[in-house]
Amino acid sequence: MNSSAPLPETAFLRPDGSNREAIAAVAQLALEQLLNLGSQADQRSPVPTWQGSERHVGIPAQSVPLPDLLQQLEPLLAQAMNPANPGYLGHMDPVASTASVIGDAIAALLNNNLLSVEMSPSFSRLETAVLRELAQRFGLGDEAGGLLLSGGSLANLQAIALARNWALQVQETGLAGLTQRPILFASEAAHTSIQKAAMLLGLGSQAVIPIATDRRGRMQVAALTEAIASARRQGQRPFCLVATAGTTVTGSIDPLPELSAIARTEGLWFHVDASYGGAVIFSPRYAHKLQGIEQANSVTFNPQKWLCVAKTSASLLLRDWSLLTEHFRIAAPYMGEADDLINLGEVSVQGTRPADILKLWLTLQHFGDRGCAALVEHGLRLCRCFVAELRQRPQIQVATPPDLNILCFRLASDRLTAELQQFLLDRYFFLSLPRFRDRLWLKAVLVNPFTTPEHIRQLFGAIDAFCRDRQIQPDPQSQDNEITYSQSL
Amino acid sequence: MNSSAPLPETAFLRPDGSNREAIAAVAQLALEQLLNLGSQADQRSPVPTWQGSERHVGIPAQSVPLPDLLQQLEPLLAQAMNPANPGYLGHMDPVASTASVIGDAIAALLNNNLLSVEMSPSFSRLETAVLRELAQRFGLGDEAGGLLLSGGSLANLQAIALARNWALQVQETGLAGLTQRPILFASEAAHTSIQKAAMLLGLGSQAVIPIATDRRGRMQVAALTEAIASARRQGQRPFCLVATAGTTVTGSIDPLPELSAIARTEGLWFHVDASYGGAVIFSPRYAHKLQGIEQANSVTFNPQKWLCVAKTSASLLLRDWSLLTEHFRIAAPYMGEADDLINLGEVSVQGTRPADILKLWLTLQHFGDRGCAALVEHGLRLCRCFVAELRQRPQIQVATPPDLNILCFRLASDRLTAELQQFLLDRYFFLSLPRFRDRLWLKAVLVNPFTTPEHIRQLFGAIDAFCRDRQIQPDPQSQDNEITYSQSL
Repeated sequence: MNSSAPLPETAFLRPDGSNREAIAAVAQLALEQLLNLGSQADQRSPVPTWQGSERHVGIPAQSVPLPDLLQQLEPLLAQAMNPANPGYLGHMDPVASTASVIGDAIAALLNNNLLSVEMSPSFSRLETAVLRELAQRFGLGDEAGGLLLSGGSLANLQAIALARNWALQVQETGLAGLTQRPILFASEAAHTSIQKAAMLLGLGSQAVIPIATDRRGRMQVAALTEAIASARRQGQRPFCLVATAGTTVTGSIDPLPELSAIARTEGLWFHVDASYGGAVIFSPRYAHKLQGIEQANSVTFNPQKWLCVAKTSASLLLRDWSLLTEHFRIAAPYMGEADDLINLGEVSVQGTRPADILKLWLTLQHFGDRGCAALVEHGLRLCRCFVAELRQRPQIQVATPPDLNILCFRLASDRLTAELQQFLLDRYFFLSLPRFRDRLWLKAVLVNPFTTPEHIRQLFGAIDAFCRDRQIQPDPQSQDNEITYSQSL
Repeated sequence: MNSSAPLPETAFLRPDGSNREAIAAVAQLALEQLLNLGSQADQRSPVPTWQGSERHVGIPAQSVPLPDLLQQLEPLLAQAMNPANPGYLGHMDPVASTASVIGDAIAALLNNNLLSVEMSPSFSRLETAVLRELAQRFGLGDEAGGLLLSGGSLANLQAIALARNWALQVQETGLAGLTQRPILFASEAAHTSIQKAAMLLGLGSQAVIPIATDRRGRMQVAALTEAIASARRQGQRPFCLVATAGTTVTGSIDPLPELSAIARTEGLWFHVDASYGGAVIFSPRYAHKLQGIEQANSVTFNPQKWLCVAKTSASLLLRDWSLLTEHFRIAAPYMGEADDLINLGEVSVQGTRPADILKLWLTLQHFGDRGCAALVEHGLRLCRCFVAELRQRPQIQVATPPDLNILCFRLASDRLTAELQQFLLDRYFFLSLPRFRDRLWLKAVLVNPFTTPEHIRQLFGAIDAFCRDRQIQPDPQSQDNEITYSQSL
């Protein structure tokens, strides 16, 4: 751009370095703001109450200087979700690793594109190598590989798309005119992205046959075999079984060995949605919880959850990477080609994609295997503390004994449970309020690296204060609390 | 985490600020590295030749310190695509705005989730407000709205999914059993993401009926009406017309007013893929090129291209925002709800999504309307320079006269054209080498803010040197170069 152009001096870092100092100055300002924000996170609510904003967001005619913009941002940043507060326990959304923030800044500055090797020579290769290693970590074997996607919903979408194309050969010709209705199976507690995928893929959201769960929130094997048989009798075409390793509401893990055996017998693609629970693979102590996942045809695993890589960091891992070429690829002849690597945009539901691999690689390297294991084990240790507190309070009902580090509990009514949520939030403890089995529950996801057993005790102190205040007595229905927990952890 | 845990001191910025100085130190290091990298971009090739890497990418057992990791990254960063080099002209992939890099760093640190209002109280609202303003900027009216998606392929996917659900009511029941085959129309030059969307959506990639283009690369209206009539005669079910405003290879703009009229008459959803060309709306001088886009039911527009917002920044803009609730939404009862806003993850192909709105908002504010217009007008000015150079060289064939700022040209053979690409790359000019109408072309996308008319003259100087070296004579077939350009710009 010539110098009379109405773009501000700081619009871009110039490739000849001629405005380096001006850029360095605003970057310093932004960095200070971020450090201030992050290092006072315990003084802001985990979920600030939205105070509204009268600011006009319209695009101005003239440039607004970056320092002014950073100042204008302040109220928005202060009212953002604040997962770094030790009382943030509500969702599978932790604070981001330092390495993530650095990785995202690098990725943004370089602005490479994982669409093709030409547009990301080093990062396409890094992603391919790291994802292959991850896939092998899950035991998927020598032909395995994977790719990053912008969120777990997309990973599940791509997995089921591949399963559908592999089973039905409909890549070019589509589903209209099929006489047998293609269906898939997932537990009633599976994530809604499975239904969304079925809707998108032209199967229809009703093509996901929900299988009943047991009292631990795990898919019932007998109900599954019955559902498959029933579908076949009705002339439907089962093609895929989705197991969940860490359900959204209770963190339950479906019985993977039994389900993989059924999938094999029935000729179904076996997909494991381990978006959340997959992290457990890093803990030598707890990896056995994922036994059977090594039989999967595909696995969704999201480092953006338990491993604290900044959003988005989600992956699809495949037992046979080459299937993507055969059953998914849409060639894009406007891109250069490499000898050693396929253009990733041709085999992904996405095209243009940033170098999300940077924050994943940096985080894995900076945490190391032992750091990843420590995060997992920290979550499970917090869960044991949580369970110990719950056992002492028979007025509290529990949804399921925990398979991982997620606990749902409630008081005698939806109203009281919702009131307790607000009471706790006023004290800087955020638990979410999902609907499960037709009731509201308080959900704690014990994934926050700053939460300590002491915080858990304080949380239960607050719950006790609420119960005293409302004169809540032990619930006679909850007498089986001991039994509820007997198989836990 | 307790202090004996094997996570490094710098794993996270602690919410009590107790490790602020350690984090500030590594952040400074990373910032210096980024500034060094960016301010010497003109000394690195626009597309470095991949030198291989013997580094082991495996996950280490123990933590690697961040300073060491930043050093290990050096060769990967040095071999990344380098769109900041003034000679980078090959793709729609520009350098990222300063505001983008800052926005992405903020988004990563806060790690909010656009999945639900509860997980991004301020950013869900900011996105909704800014996207509504953008939709109205395109003339889509009072009921319009939009959402960001992680890339234009996803925006096109969601647009066609909505069109399909709206036309065929297949959201729950799917496509199997439909007796009429649903089809859509797009020009033969439309982006491959349209075929990918059709494949994903269960329509089959063959459901996209390619319509012939004229010598300017624009969809032929007569061919379209004929194709629609023919499809109806064959008992197929046309439901959508996709126009392109800025095709991938030649930047051509389909005749939007005529196409919108046909879509209305035929009862088709009218989607405009303005991923690239949409930016022109910001230039009072050139916005007329998009005339007719205000008739669209949906528009894909990617600020990540001409407006230089870091990847990903892609949007889907809808004339009637409420259609998403009726024809797309998959409810997710595990999230909190807000009174004033729908949870965006329920109406998007994505679930978890970062606050990409930050970098878009910061960039639009920092550039202002006039800065955005300046970027557009800079690109078109460069294009006129480019055309002036081409006119003087009858040995060069041109694919189409430019509608925007993209030019494809070639020498007498594919081989010579490919050799010229390498010759130019050795001199730090990168043009890509797409296949178009069965031949290879050199493609220049004149979107780089650092490219000047002087660079264009240098580029043609290099082309002249190549032609002298190879003794290339004027091509007698190219005698109509004057005619080719007569209607340009």
